[in-house]
Amino acid sequence: MTFAPPTSDGPGAVRPPPSLDALLDRYRSVRGFSRTLCETLHPEDTVLQSMPDASPVRWHLAHTTWFFETFLLKPLPGYRSPHPAFETLFNSYYNTVGEQFPRAQRGLLSRPTLDEVMAYRSHVDSTLLEADLPANAASVLEIGVNHEQQHQELILTDIKHALSLNPLGPVFREPRASSTATARQARWISVAGGQCRIGHGGPGFAYDNESPRHRVWLDDFQIAGRLVTCEEYGAFIDDGGYRRPEFWLSAGWQAVQQGAWKAPLYWRRDDAAQAWSQFTLAGPRPVVGAEPVTHVSYFEADAYARWAGARLPTEAEWEVAFANEKVQGAFADQRIASRQAIHPGPATGADRQAYGEAWQWTSSAYSAYPGYRPPAGALGEYNGKFMCGSFVLRGASCATPSGHARATYRNFFAPDARWQFTGLRLARDGEPSA
Amino acid sequence: MTFAPPTSDGPGAVRPPPSLDALLDRYRSVRGFSRTLCETLHPEDTVLQSMPDASPVRWHLAHTTWFFETFLLKPLPGYRSPHPAFETLFNSYYNTVGEQFPRAQRGLLSRPTLDEVMAYRSHVDSTLLEADLPANAASVLEIGVNHEQQHQELILTDIKHALSLNPLGPVFREPRASSTATARQARWISVAGGQCRIGHGGPGFAYDNESPRHRVWLDDFQIAGRLVTCEEYGAFIDDGGYRRPEFWLSAGWQAVQQGAWKAPLYWRRDDAAQAWSQFTLAGPRPVVGAEPVTHVSYFEADAYARWAGARLPTEAEWEVAFANEKVQGAFADQRIASRQAIHPGPATGADRQAYGEAWQWTSSAYSAYPGYRPPAGALGEYNGKFMCGSFVLRGASCATPSGHARATYRNFFAPDARWQFTGLRLARDGEPSA
Amino acid sequence: MTFAPPTSDGPGAVRPPPSLDALLDRYRSVRGFSRTLCETLHPEDTVLQSMPDASPVRWHLAHTTWFFETFLLKPLPGYRSPHPAFETLFNSYYNTVGEQFPRAQRGLLSRPTLDEVMAYRSHVDSTLLEADLPANAASVLEIGVNHEQQHQELILTDIKHALSLNPLGPVFREPRASSTATARQARWISVAGGQCRIGHGGPGFAYDNESPRHRVWLDDFQIAGRLVTCEEYGAFIDDGGYRRPEFWLSAGWQAVQQGAWKAPLYWRRDDAAQAWSQFTLAGPRPVVGAEPVTHVSYFEADAYARWAGARLPTEAEWEVAFANEKVQGAFADQRIASRQAIHPGPATGADRQAYGEAWQWTSSAYSAYPGYRPPAGALGEYNGKFMCGSFVLRGASCATPSGHARATYRNFFAPDARWQFTGLRLARDGEPSA
Amino acid sequence: MTFAPPTSDGPGAVRPPPSLDALLDRYRSVRGFSRTLCETLHPEDTVLQSMPDASPVRWHLAHTTWFFETFLLKPLPGYRSPHPAFETLFNSYYNTVGEQFPRAQRGLLSRPTLDEVMAYRSHVDSTLLEADLPANAASVLEIGVNHEQQHQELILTDIKHALSLNPLGPVFREPRASSTATARQARWISVAGGQCRIGHGGPGFAYDNESPRHRVWLDDFQIAGRLVTCEEYGAFIDDGGYRRPEFWLSAGWQAVQQGAWKAPLYWRRDDAAQAWSQFTLAGPRPVVGAEPVTHVSYFEADAYARWAGARLPTEAEWEVAFANEKVQGAFADQRIASRQAIHPGPATGADRQAYGEAWQWTSSAYSAYPGYRPPAGALGEYNGKFMCGSFVLRGASCATPSGHARATYRNFFAPDARWQFTGLRLARDGEPSA
Repeated sequence: MTFAPPTSDGPGAVRPPPSLDALLDRYRSVRGFSRTLCETLHPEDTVLQSMPDASPVRWHLAHTTWFFETFLLKPLPGYRSPHPAFETLFNSYYNTVGEQFPRAQRGLLSRPTLDEVMAYRSHVDSTLLEADLPANAASVLEIGVNHEQQHQELILTDIKHALSLNPLGPVFREPRASSTATARQARWISVAGGQCRIGHGGPGFAYDNESPRHRVWLDDFQIAGRLVTCEEYGAFIDDGGYRRPEFWLSAGWQAVQQGAWKAPLYWRRDDAAQAWSQFTLAGPRPVVGAEPVTHVSYFEADAYARWAGARLPTEAEWEVAFANEKVQGAFADQRIASRQAIHPGPATGADRQAYGEAWQWTSSAYSAYPGYRPPAGALGEYNGKFMCGSFVLRGASCATPSGHARATYRNFFAPDARWQFTGLRLARDGEPSA
Repeated sequence: MTFAPPTSDGPGAVRPPPSLDALLDRYRSVRGFSRTLCETLHPEDTVLQSMPDASPVRWHLAHTTWFFETFLLKPLPGYRSPHPAFETLFNSYYNTVGEQFPRAQRGLLSRPTLDEVMAYRSHVDSTLLEADLPANAASVLEIGVNHEQQHQELILTDIKHALSLNPLGPVFREPRASSTATARQARWISVAGGQCRIGHGGPGFAYDNESPRHRVWLDDFQIAGRLVTCEEYGAFIDDGGYRRPEFWLSAGWQAVQQGAWKAPLYWRRDDAAQAWSQFTLAGPRPVVGAEPVTHVSYFEADAYARWAGARLPTEAEWEVAFANEKVQGAFADQRIASRQAIHPGPATGADRQAYGEAWQWTSSAYSAYPGYRPPAGALGEYNGKFMCGSFVLRGASCATPSGHARATYRNFFAPDARWQFTGLRLARDGEPSA
Repeated sequence: MTFAPPTSDGPGAVRPPPSLDALLDRYRSVRGFSRTLCETLHPEDTVLQSMPDASPVRWHLAHTTWFFETFLLKPLPGYRSPHPAFETLFNSYYNTVGEQFPRAQRGLLSRPTLDEVMAYRSHVDSTLLEADLPANAASVLEIGVNHEQQHQELILTDIKHALSLNPLGPVFREPRASSTATARQARWISVAGGQCRIGHGGPGFAYDNESPRHRVWLDDFQIAGRLVTCEEYGAFIDDGGYRRPEFWLSAGWQAVQQGAWKAPLYWRRDDAAQAWSQFTLAGPRPVVGAEPVTHVSYFEADAYARWAGARLPTEAEWEVAFANEKVQGAFADQRIASRQAIHPGPATGADRQAYGEAWQWTSSAYSAYPGYRPPAGALGEYNGKFMCGSFVLRGASCATPSGHARATYRNFFAPDARWQFTGLRLARDGEPSA
Repeated sequence: MTFAPPTSDGPGAVRPPPSLDALLDRYRSVRGFSRTLCETLHPEDTVLQSMPDASPVRWHLAHTTWFFETFLLKPLPGYRSPHPAFETLFNSYYNTVGEQFPRAQRGLLSRPTLDEVMAYRSHVDSTLLEADLPANAASVLEIGVNHEQQHQELILTDIKHALSLNPLGPVFREPRASSTATARQARWISVAGGQCRIGHGGPGFAYDNESPRHRVWLDDFQIAGRLVTCEEYGAFIDDGGYRRPEFWLSAGWQAVQQGAWKAPLYWRRDDAAQAWSQFTLAGPRPVVGAEPVTHVSYFEADAYARWAGARLPTEAEWEVAFANEKVQGAFADQRIASRQAIHPGPATGADRQAYGEAWQWTSSAYSAYPGYRPPAGALGEYNGKFMCGSFVLRGASCATPSGHARATYRNFFAPDARWQFTGLRLARDGEPSA
């Protein structure tokens, strides 16, 4: 079974695999962070599945473990799973591997309990760390670690959605407070077009969907130097944004009607105070104008941009604009370690907010790059089969763990999804030269 | 606020209220049994809501407590609830009392946790037992105790349904085994008709819907001396019962098609063994032919009776037939205390299985007795507003706590409900006298 | 095949069958009225199926014809249907006869066209009227004629529902105007209870569900001398009837919420005029206070009665109260012949409005009379299999053809059905004698 | 109001508007063909709406007329519509123009009747042809004529879907027979990539979504010289195509499960004959292996291509491959005039089947071209607001009227749509040069 994504960028450019030792260190650290993430949760919290797109925290903890067990331990001679029934329960969507428990019913399972899931994690961790792993284990280990990081972000967004439905206003994790800073003024950054290259082609890990690196033609364009703020988005609301069909895609207008959308997800109008509050991972608190707007769907991002006389960038524009920017920001693990809120904060200083605040919707439908080929075997189901109906997001959010962001990263969600930390950055066509 | 059901059966026949001391003893004992019932559950189990008709165990534990707090403690001078938000969360359907959290979403709440719910129970128990209760407290206390007993049965049936969906086959409580006894031969009991009286009119507690005692005319009839067994029901299945529309009500045939029903709820066909197994509160085990069939809907009970050349009794026939029978059987608390399975067992000896095995569907639509008037105030919502669309069941099941069964008791469920311990007893018209 | 309902009321009381000649005369007349009913419709109108409970007019015209062909012509030696495919298309629900085209999709068929259906009618009529019918034909003919009359009422109610959805406000048939008379004052009629008999037992046709005649016990009661008017019902609306859950059955309150009910079906609020208008078979026109309220569900009838401090009668009470009343009223054929509106009119003179205005909801769930047995064969599917989930209506409406009403008639519909001409008459318990 | 799409391709390249006289000739001819199309239909047929995506034929006939009335006649001084209510009834989705009758309920309207709609058409035609049209009328007239042609194709596909549900197997229009020719062998056509231009930039009409003409980069590729045939597609079915998830997009596999898809829409398995039959506009007939497969969704086209070891072309590849091909084929009006079946036929001779057989799915999500701007005013709602969730199809089908096809044309449908004449053409990456 080979499942490593194509990594060459021309003859001779094969990426050297990371060392197994380095990967095992990373394994320990990433697995540990999953445990840290959940330390404030009660067993009851880990049962909740608040919608079919979300999964219970226990499921995330078990599924990521199942991934390592299935693709690394089961092929080992003599390995026998202590929990054969987990194969069905914790397979997410790998048809090649076998049957799956219905996704929408994951919240109907109370067993294995949180303690039992944690014991399963310990079993797989200790077995794996002591095993005599084969040569090709490195690439599986690497994808498994990245896979678990994706689920760490989902743990945060899924539990946020679930707790938001509880009238008691539960707190996942302090602190609540945001900076009172005002946001930096927005500026346009001009980018010269022409024949460009996008996609992953160099060293370092990337998913198959970021390959191959390929040529695209771009006209000159401009892209905003920070994310759209709550204050700016509030002006759209105040201008009747959610009541005026002319700003919306047809499917977006339907979503507004059917969902009775009047503001981003988690915003609630406090009529007495004439102000918006919002549910956060630290419980309910006021909306802060200087913070980037988040929990907006593609439809809302697109409508806002049209209202603002601008547009969303394409994914190629985003990548070209930020290709040379250093990958830094306030990532989820750093926020927890430094007791910062897990919520996007205002743009300050020279920060262009590429990473660590909110994912940024692009106008690009998620599809295969020219020449894309999914890997053979089960891991070929990782990305390719979802290339329909979603839009690409670029950057990384406050819920993304560090080490999981890069300029070529292609996140993707359905255009009506709002429970991720999704925001937007404006773009517009370049001005014709004189 | 007066909510005591009419208890007179003519001038001067007012039922003397039970003493407050006796009721407080009963309160302690019933409240304690709720705790016993849940002692084998994990916190995660108590979150599950497997369908809109069912509720999480934590909700049952809190709602029954809310009932006492709302109707007994809140009217006390100076009482302040430590949890005002619980009013919305744990109000089931009392519109008069206020807003309710949407019923179908009870499974989306992880807070209050099981520990917090137990602390709420302790708070209400200790406050109530030390309070200076007013004179009219007795009747509220009495209905509250009966109310909690109803929810004890629901705790058993709801957790059974929830655990049944888990492929791991969880065990709620041992033992699993049933007797291997064969069932006694079925016999017809002939009952003389004429002008009869049914309904509650004597001493002892009864719900409002059992009143007033009133006259009905009955023709002579015969009623079976025991419940229909799994073996008998299996013959119906083998004869194509679920494939032949001629046995079914039109709405029942629709339910068969839409639900793809092929056997009672919880039965699974083991094709290799050519036998049926079933999920029980002690996990999966084989179907035992001598046991009463249970978890059948009204539609199935009615179709079986038609196939068998008989019919279901009316509720008046059932009550007249068993009015003078002693109320005894294997009730839920006795089963747990004596380590018996919480599952209906075979008819042995002279036992006519009126109580303590399975509720028995009657052909009577649930409606008001002539002259029925719901009590004033919030408790008037207890029964009357559900008098539409359900059928009456008589007797009591293996999940009913002792002290909660009587000949006039009117249980009621929708005709497609299958998750209660519901079975059937046949009836037929009396033979014309020579 | 015998399908005549039991008609004896004790030894020797066998009802003499009507003569074949008389029945053939009735056949001609009833079949002709179906044609008259549809003469104002366009072919396009006859395609509409506005909800699953309704059927296209073409379907009614063909189905009633199929009934005669199936049960009278097909058994004839040598008869071959010119349209074998019609058997599936126009079988309503007779599983014994064979497959059925899905009910909810009847509006998706444009063929056979209206002309083709009329030709099918002519073919069956001429064949039947010239055939050498067997001895037992009389009872089939009789039930077939009654069956077609039922569908004539459905033609009127189904096309009314369909046309009501068209913003152009189409007119089925003039005249529109109602009398401007005021309604007679309502009076209570006192009826003495005791042991009574209800059900069909005498001469004349009746459906199987009206048998056998049997004993019931009734307490003394009072029943209103006319139907509830629009003016009276308007007072209920004005008093917040549709906003106050205390008047409603639990399932009724759900229907109010889900259907956003604010008034009877077809009522529209004209805010400018501060008045209600309604859609009628003659197009939209104002609501007239003196007319009986119609197009209310059981839930609404029940809630109104509770608001009014009264209750609905049981079906036994209704039958006993009107058993000796002459069956007369303004029936559909008479209304068309005399150019009267097909809409309930005000109570005038001594008319108690038992028949010919609106069907009257009773509080009785539709179920089998004691000793009821459905006829053998396919016609046994006529009534018995629907004995679940409906409530009984008594009387007859302005859309009922003459000759199709009697005191023992049991009409039945689901409690949320509103598209029939359904109204209500109040009742209350008799006053205790001094 | 200006709504003409940008037509320049650089300075000085403004497209000369067609003359008003030429457009009025075209108007007469296109309007006449709508009438011809419907001449075999019964009034009843024109009521049917078999699914929300389809519309009744009467609606198409009225809506296209409403378009001319709204955008050309209503602005005329003194014009008063004889049917003001038609504005709501026949507005499809122009929020700017006003309220719309709910799309999914168009099949619930029987009025205006077919005769009345035809009279409405005549009224608008005679008024328009005699009016003194303003200077800017030409561009509206041109888009209106193209708009009506789009609806002519929809009339054919919508009535086909509706009639297919009728068990009587109705015939829309003879002849049924297809050629018995065998299909030409498939060949790959190699196309050199590089920097290319696509989009409309020359003379002649085009929709706004075809603009602006712009640069794209293409790698070398190969494209099939004809469409995939039923025989080839049958091999995919026989190889378990509909049972093997590995060929399908995740959303496609869901569609297969939920729709119980086993073959293209309209195919039925005749188990006795061991062969497939299909419903056509001439009624049911056998599937012919040499004909192009049609009525497949994007999901099926994509899965077939993956099974075949190939892929679908992008829309840019398709356009570059056929940019210089003459636009010719068997279009709907020509097929009717020459009494050919309205169904795709086998590839013969040198025909590459670009036009006049079946629309060809591309792998391109439908989105805006770089620099695209929707026209101002109501007609800006024509295309842009649908740029989400659909895939682009290229070419033209047997149901497309002549004059309505070109290399830059962008048709688009949701990926699960199957009721259009949609087929596929394979592509693959170019072979690396030696």
